[in-house]
Amino acid sequence: MSKHRPTIADIARRAGVSKVAVSYALNDRPGVSPATRASIKAIAQEIGWRPNSAARALTHARADTVGLALSRPARMLGVEPFFMELISGIETELSARGCALLLQVVTDPAQELEMYRRWWGEGRVDGVFLADVRSPDPRIGGIAELGMPAVVIGHPSAAGTLTPVWSDDSAALRDTLTYLAALGHRSVARVAGLPELIHTQLRDRAQREISAGLGLDEPVVVHTDYSGEEGAHATRRLISSATRPTAVIYDNDIMAVAGLSVAQEMGLDVPADLSLVAWDDSQLSRVVRPPLTALSRDIPAYGSHAARTLLAMVADGSAPGFEDAAARLVPRGSTAPPR
Amino acid sequence: MSKHRPTIADIARRAGVSKVAVSYALNDRPGVSPATRASIKAIAQEIGWRPNSAARALTHARADTVGLALSRPARMLGVEPFFMELISGIETELSARGCALLLQVVTDPAQELEMYRRWWGEGRVDGVFLADVRSPDPRIGGIAELGMPAVVIGHPSAAGTLTPVWSDDSAALRDTLTYLAALGHRSVARVAGLPELIHTQLRDRAQREISAGLGLDEPVVVHTDYSGEEGAHATRRLISSATRPTAVIYDNDIMAVAGLSVAQEMGLDVPADLSLVAWDDSQLSRVVRPPLTALSRDIPAYGSHAARTLLAMVADGSAPGFEDAAARLVPRGSTAPPR
Repeated sequence: MSKHRPTIADIARRAGVSKVAVSYALNDRPGVSPATRASIKAIAQEIGWRPNSAARALTHARADTVGLALSRPARMLGVEPFFMELISGIETELSARGCALLLQVVTDPAQELEMYRRWWGEGRVDGVFLADVRSPDPRIGGIAELGMPAVVIGHPSAAGTLTPVWSDDSAALRDTLTYLAALGHRSVARVAGLPELIHTQLRDRAQREISAGLGLDEPVVVHTDYSGEEGAHATRRLISSATRPTAVIYDNDIMAVAGLSVAQEMGLDVPADLSLVAWDDSQLSRVVRPPLTALSRDIPAYGSHAARTLLAMVADGSAPGFEDAAARLVPRGSTAPPR
Repeated sequence: MSKHRPTIADIARRAGVSKVAVSYALNDRPGVSPATRASIKAIAQEIGWRPNSAARALTHARADTVGLALSRPARMLGVEPFFMELISGIETELSARGCALLLQVVTDPAQELEMYRRWWGEGRVDGVFLADVRSPDPRIGGIAELGMPAVVIGHPSAAGTLTPVWSDDSAALRDTLTYLAALGHRSVARVAGLPELIHTQLRDRAQREISAGLGLDEPVVVHTDYSGEEGAHATRRLISSATRPTAVIYDNDIMAVAGLSVAQEMGLDVPADLSLVAWDDSQLSRVVRPPLTALSRDIPAYGSHAARTLLAMVADGSAPGFEDAAARLVPRGSTAPPR
């Protein structure tokens, strides 16, 4: 099995010269005679030697690789379409530029920062993406200190001195709440994501402020880990409470699908008894009955914008942040005036 | 922003010596005086220099990185939990060994092979995973020719001379069909995946043979691209046909969820009028009503086994293939005797 990759050592052995001489010859640097150079190049060609990225990296100081560490629990990655769609968008942009993505699942942001330090110190990456920014987040200051190009996939207020690529969740919530208020809803709850994530906190605050502005009830917000199980559990609690909401917004679509099932299991008609809105629109939202009203956005495009921004930073030393389009409300069968 | 990574050149400049001298000193090789060596090491420490993976790779000939290229359409990656769960399992094993995963989305197996050639030639990876093997598949012979360590995530019959990690889909189908036959079903259709994939072909053949052995009707198999849309479309066709099946097996769970919605939309009761079985059990299968009977397997563990096998190949030059446990049938509310 292990027919090994031809190395400079192989060429040196065949040519009967030192590895240093081979290196000089292949890099067209002085130090070997023209005859030796020609002979070394011929042998390199014959045995199929190609420049090693390691050797190239020493010369060009470019890894042609960018990194992404994900600190969500591994089981969640298989469930939420978001990250895989984001990665597919990042890949679309990277692969067009001959750049690879180094991916690692880590258990927490501190471990993630340590890994970024190593990747950067060892020249494995030219830059990284930061997702799921927390408050506080050791990665923001740590990466700024390293001077490593980094794009924060998240709101500018969370990015410190790093470059953000984001979309306006407040605008998306405003559209949704305005629409639900126009349908006649007064009590709109939300089944939210992890409370320590900045984007959850921004959504929580926006929902309170916008609800107040529209004259809606103070919203009940239940935090979860984004799983269908917790989405179902939160929905059961909301439906069973004395002040049952007439509409629920979910921070992802797997929880909204779970919420729909719970509502049906508890004998409620969706949308007559309960309207449901899913954040992030995937095939899931469309294949259930009724299909779900959703906050739809082009997640692969979001990933591409993040990748384009990071590659610009790597090339030019800096790049402006980028605000992507806000999610667009797509009404389907899961929302209606309350009965 | 671009405070650059400290390099050997920086140390050389500060120490007033050549880069070669710095390299000798840092690698504890003869050629510099003890005093110079000490001074160089002190400067290296002071400016925070760490060995570059490029330099290390030249010495150790290990990239400490393995590759995975996915040639499914990008949009499918966001939908099917399978790949993200597989990747999370691969990551679990790799990160424990300080090894990273280089991930790339490609448009076809030929482009994928070309990329593997480049990765291998440039020393970017120590080995690769091959998924979704086709018939014929240019990657199998191409990679064998390169002599690059590779693990085929798929049946041995598809792996050529490469090392396979697989589970027995025939056994899983036998359990499922035997169970459905015991419930009294005679007409069991399947909404299958891409027809050019070896594992689809193996399932197709197994279903025909096992159905014949159990005295069931010749199965109708509809091939799709694994999307919810095609799963819904295939289900509509099956339900509308003159010889409507009483049970349908789906090759993934998003199609099964879509099929459930179509059955309900067409006024059929699941499971009384139509029993449904999902292949690959995710949260989706459990959050819909009725919850889906599913062929459940530990996909992260499957990924871990593949990673362990590949790392053993990289370390030892070869490794035996590994047969993972077959998917286990978990009956839930979507299967019952036919009305």
